[in-house]
Amino acid sequence: MSGFVLNERLEAESRLVCILGLCQLRLMNDSRWPWLLLVPRRAEAEEIYHLTPLDQTLLTFEAGETARALKRVTGCRKINVGALGNVVAQLHVHVIARNPGDAGWPGPVWGLGKAQPYDTNSADALIRAVVKEL
Amino acid sequence: MSGFVLNERLEAESRLVCILGLCQLRLMNDSRWPWLLLVPRRAEAEEIYHLTPLDQTLLTFEAGETARALKRVTGCRKINVGALGNVVAQLHVHVIARNPGDAGWPGPVWGLGKAQPYDTNSADALIRAVVKEL
Repeated sequence: MSGFVLNERLEAESRLVCILGLCQLRLMNDSRWPWLLLVPRRAEAEEIYHLTPLDQTLLTFEAGETARALKRVTGCRKINVGALGNVVAQLHVHVIARNPGDAGWPGPVWGLGKAQPYDTNSADALIRAVVKEL
Repeated sequence: MSGFVLNERLEAESRLVCILGLCQLRLMNDSRWPWLLLVPRRAEAEEIYHLTPLDQTLLTFEAGETARALKRVTGCRKINVGALGNVVAQLHVHVIARNPGDAGWPGPVWGLGKAQPYDTNSADALIRAVVKEL
């Protein structure tokens, strides 16, 4: 973890949920979709294959547990998982709950319109529910 | 692998590159981006966490090797990796080479405009180059 500093933009757009073995788990501040972010606490990783094989396995495990928890909390139709990094290069994995009729369905969420921030109570409740399921 | 049948739409939109331990590796027939597809040969998997832990590790390994090969072949700025499944539920993982100035940059590729099919020679050459790097 030495040298890891969370990217400023990721920090500004999301809130810490909890620290996992490898990643910071964060909630994107956009209430249009329940949208979590996993940020491996490794300096300079930009692609998944930059991680060691053990860290890649940890990331897969943490992304799986996060997806399962988000599915249980939201009852969503589909989980979308993605690591793009075209805007923010620091490696981060999106885990998003999707449903028919949500904003942009069935297209991707990235770059779509403007974020609709949560009110604090709603974000707190979602974070508590996710942590309980992890 | 018993019971696995490739989804018709994935089959129509892509071409087989090679068979890996877990996945069919395929090339999307859209020359706007070098765009590969990994389809785990497991019946009824729709989310990554539906796979066994061993299969999840295999998928991570195969996606990493595919991303590295695509990076070497194309010299792209960024690899985009995603498993969405909002349109085709059968589990499939996209591995896409992205560059500043490409169609839709820095946004995602899914659902953007119309596919521009390859001519056969270009697709053959890309497939050969990827297989050589794997």
